[in-house]
Amino acid sequence: MQKYEEAHKILKDIPLNLQTERVAVNEAFNRVLAEDLYTDFSFPDCQKSAVDGYALVMWDKNEYRIKGESVPGDLKSAKLQTGECIFVMTGGIVPDNADAVVRVEDVVEENGQIRLNRQPEKGVNINLAGEEFPEHALFAEHGRLLNDLAYPALCYSGKKDVKVYKKPKIGVFVTGDEILEPGNDYRKGHVFNTNRYILLSLLKYLPADIEYVGCFDDNEEEIAKVLEKSNE
Amino acid sequence: MQKYEEAHKILKDIPLNLQTERVAVNEAFNRVLAEDLYTDFSFPDCQKSAVDGYALVMWDKNEYRIKGESVPGDLKSAKLQTGECIFVMTGGIVPDNADAVVRVEDVVEENGQIRLNRQPEKGVNINLAGEEFPEHALFAEHGRLLNDLAYPALCYSGKKDVKVYKKPKIGVFVTGDEILEPGNDYRKGHVFNTNRYILLSLLKYLPADIEYVGCFDDNEEEIAKVLEKSNE
Repeated sequence: MQKYEEAHKILKDIPLNLQTERVAVNEAFNRVLAEDLYTDFSFPDCQKSAVDGYALVMWDKNEYRIKGESVPGDLKSAKLQTGECIFVMTGGIVPDNADAVVRVEDVVEENGQIRLNRQPEKGVNINLAGEEFPEHALFAEHGRLLNDLAYPALCYSGKKDVKVYKKPKIGVFVTGDEILEPGNDYRKGHVFNTNRYILLSLLKYLPADIEYVGCFDDNEEEIAKVLEKSNE
Repeated sequence: MQKYEEAHKILKDIPLNLQTERVAVNEAFNRVLAEDLYTDFSFPDCQKSAVDGYALVMWDKNEYRIKGESVPGDLKSAKLQTGECIFVMTGGIVPDNADAVVRVEDVVEENGQIRLNRQPEKGVNINLAGEEFPEHALFAEHGRLLNDLAYPALCYSGKKDVKVYKKPKIGVFVTGDEILEPGNDYRKGHVFNTNRYILLSLLKYLPADIEYVGCFDDNEEEIAKVLEKSNE
């Protein structure tokens, strides 16, 4: 019987020949990056609101006329004059010249205008352009696992596909003259195959191609053949 | 915006109409049991060896003639006379009248017999019949998740299929006039769909049927319709 440390060393010493492939971004979760990824635009690409509220240019009064609302992608309409505000949803574009976004909860809306109890602090509730990443910035490195942190950034980047390492192939086989498959008739002294199903059930959560190779008798030569064939 | 606690309470208060189905054992990983499971035979069903070694009936000498080996399922051949031993692999059947199994590492084998340095303790390296569960014993309860602990026991039990609760269905939709799909052309002020892919990627690790419903505009009526339709 090989000890765990010995088996681990044998596995670690096998030279790897890693191959890469391009996959669609929506297939890239839990894959390993084979390239550095750079932003094509700033994250976010213009200043945006952190809340549902009203973007405004501060002036000496506490009343602002509601000019309309921020429409995604319509950057031209988003210009504010003194005394105007526009409604903006969370994530919506905030006009370049806005000083702050006031939460809907903090205003009284009446007759096409809003009234504030007090002036907001400058810059409040505005996420600045490039706050997360500037343009042409490295946002995920070669070798990185595309999981909960890097994967949303990849989706956000708008890239169509991405270069990743090919999945490892895992072959599973079990050995034992005494093995029965669930569904076989019970025979005293034999055991129903358990390792096959627990291993395959757990392995399917890994980013790997899994193949069940079979169940083989306790025969050294036969098992050696199976290992050699699997290696082809 | 609903607070987390409020949303959780709403979800908890929805009456559930749980349905069941029978699935093959090899499809039952991570499903929830809808029946109590009883053993049809003892776990293990006869006494077995915990090691690769020699099963023997102790006598006043330290030499034992190797009679042969324990063959899975051939319970008849597994009878020992005084002074005899049989080779038995880990998990192999140990004759009813054996006193102990001595590890291969602890014997010297020569001329069809083994020699021990000292007599083993009685019962050593023998797993008793029914040691894990006797016959007709409850081994997994209704409501139990069939995961790493209960699932191998289910496989081991030799049952062909099992009654489980049907998987929940999870519909995912995203909202926002500003959403682009990866592959669409970049448009300043819009954002590429991120929630869709991260949610679907994470949800696929759950035992649930997942459906992507679509992306809808920020329109209360439209979203209400989507929710009503999903509920049908």
